[in-house]
Amino acid sequence: MSVRTLAWEENAVLLLDQTRLPREKTYLRIDNPQTMWQAIKQLSVRGAPAIGDAAAFGLYLGIRDSNADSFDAFYAEVEAMARYLASSRPTAVNLFWALDRMKRVAAADPTATVSAIKDKLLAEAQAILAEDLDTCKAIGRHAEPLIPDGGTVLTHCNAGGLATAGYGTALAGIYTAHESGKSVAVFADETRPLLQGARITAFELMEAGVPVTVICDNMAPVVLREGKIDLVIVGADRIAANGDAANKIGTYGVALAAREHDIPFYVAAPLSTIDRNLADGSLIPIEERDGDEVVHWGQVPTAPEGVRVYNPAFDVTPQALIAGIITEVGVLRAPFTDSIRQAFEPSTG
Amino acid sequence: MSVRTLAWEENAVLLLDQTRLPREKTYLRIDNPQTMWQAIKQLSVRGAPAIGDAAAFGLYLGIRDSNADSFDAFYAEVEAMARYLASSRPTAVNLFWALDRMKRVAAADPTATVSAIKDKLLAEAQAILAEDLDTCKAIGRHAEPLIPDGGTVLTHCNAGGLATAGYGTALAGIYTAHESGKSVAVFADETRPLLQGARITAFELMEAGVPVTVICDNMAPVVLREGKIDLVIVGADRIAANGDAANKIGTYGVALAAREHDIPFYVAAPLSTIDRNLADGSLIPIEERDGDEVVHWGQVPTAPEGVRVYNPAFDVTPQALIAGIITEVGVLRAPFTDSIRQAFEPSTG
Repeated sequence: MSVRTLAWEENAVLLLDQTRLPREKTYLRIDNPQTMWQAIKQLSVRGAPAIGDAAAFGLYLGIRDSNADSFDAFYAEVEAMARYLASSRPTAVNLFWALDRMKRVAAADPTATVSAIKDKLLAEAQAILAEDLDTCKAIGRHAEPLIPDGGTVLTHCNAGGLATAGYGTALAGIYTAHESGKSVAVFADETRPLLQGARITAFELMEAGVPVTVICDNMAPVVLREGKIDLVIVGADRIAANGDAANKIGTYGVALAAREHDIPFYVAAPLSTIDRNLADGSLIPIEERDGDEVVHWGQVPTAPEGVRVYNPAFDVTPQALIAGIITEVGVLRAPFTDSIRQAFEPSTG
Repeated sequence: MSVRTLAWEENAVLLLDQTRLPREKTYLRIDNPQTMWQAIKQLSVRGAPAIGDAAAFGLYLGIRDSNADSFDAFYAEVEAMARYLASSRPTAVNLFWALDRMKRVAAADPTATVSAIKDKLLAEAQAILAEDLDTCKAIGRHAEPLIPDGGTVLTHCNAGGLATAGYGTALAGIYTAHESGKSVAVFADETRPLLQGARITAFELMEAGVPVTVICDNMAPVVLREGKIDLVIVGADRIAANGDAANKIGTYGVALAAREHDIPFYVAAPLSTIDRNLADGSLIPIEERDGDEVVHWGQVPTAPEGVRVYNPAFDVTPQALIAGIITEVGVLRAPFTDSIRQAFEPSTG
């Protein structure tokens, strides 16, 4: 990937404004938590792992100028800032996971100076970013054997390098296969309403030299029926303890069509996307976004003014439709309740 | 409907340019076959029955100034003009059906004068248009009992008044129910790439006072899962002898999701949409359109320049997913091979 999602440089976050892709590669310089909140809300940064990375830096930006003179006062600011950043988007659990991790670091040593804790928080945000990249590479190693030489993968939305610190989740196996010399091609659902597939997935695959064909979301069922696809790999925004997976709206329909045509449907995600507190997918909160995203193109209305719109941003794919969950520790298989629990247990080798 | 699809006025066809909806209600005045060919190709007029109406008038426009001085010379011009107009779009069978009907009228009486045959051809085009409206109203009467009071119908693309001479096929039952005092609401798939659902279906339902909610195509599976929908009704561009139905791309995915959630999926179409020459849907020619429709918004690219695109304009829904085919002679049920054959047999009452 020649294009970075976000980086810490000169005391600020440089963040690619993905709302402007593919026409402009513009980096935002973000040095305060309010701007980071907006960047997450408005999808300048998106993708579950990248949102976690961004929120961790956002928390640091929100407390680095704190004048708190006691641990308790400082920690209260950390908690308030975490609550604030957590309100930006509801579905991707990595946001809450990253903020919780930052809070644990802040709470770890109440005897430390506020200044020392600030330093540890910056280091932790940097660690989260670095681990995200390592995790994606591990996901790629586990996904690569699933992709046949000469194979074609269908994906939905963007769970690529630009949804993470780099390399991606759903696209990680494709990059690994490509780099190992396998011939691999991709069909990318455009992903309405915001076209992350056409704008972002197509962009980063073309940059990497991977052949990609863009289709409308509603073409995926016939593409699957026509034998063009060997397997489906998508990302996830939150996975319940039983394996039910929330991902970008439209994923569920792809999974139904894949099952109809006996094409394996995989979800690729780091363990940090799994929310073991939720027994099943019905408990995952689904963000509903502004209807204007559906019925406007920029400022131009594409439907009669005043029409009702329903705009859920995610849907839940039941675990029964999922062939495997590709994580950094391997491919989890059904029964997922067991394989997920085991993935979180310390190795007893 | 306060807006007419097309009309014969002052020796020309007035045709609503549907590419400009909902922002502009502009009528094209079409007085030659080349302009009609373009209007069909570029989707200024679309929808299987309306294409048939337009082509019938297009054929008349193409021969009315003929200087042929014999029946044979004149009929050769009719055939050439029919071939030309038939090349505008490949999938909707009503196009070929209407042109064949015009050719039969032209061929009926070789002893008639060329001038008299011209008059009969204009009368036949007007009859095709008038019968289209009557047929739609009959479809509405047969569809209405399927819609419960307080019910909600999901539809895909536009098979409404603007896809026909008026009243529509998929929407006919909704209009009939609405006019009879039933409470009925609609979810309209926006229908990528050209947004006929958001632009045209939402427009004509709002004009008629029927509550309509626009969704992205990829939201239909969750809308069906969430219990918001009582039944699905879509149109068709060509139906094979076994009941397999070609309709706008994305229809197949809706049918799969409807089956998954036990929601009846109906196809509404006149008998003229049934092509008994084709044993099953695999034989229906599927139009593939320019990829720019998918990756451009007007002149603005929405994906990286040069990306590959696949853009089939229709898909085929297997008859096994169809609860019934609503025609002007009643609701045909499985086994469709039998019910379709019987629908074409003269009543033996």
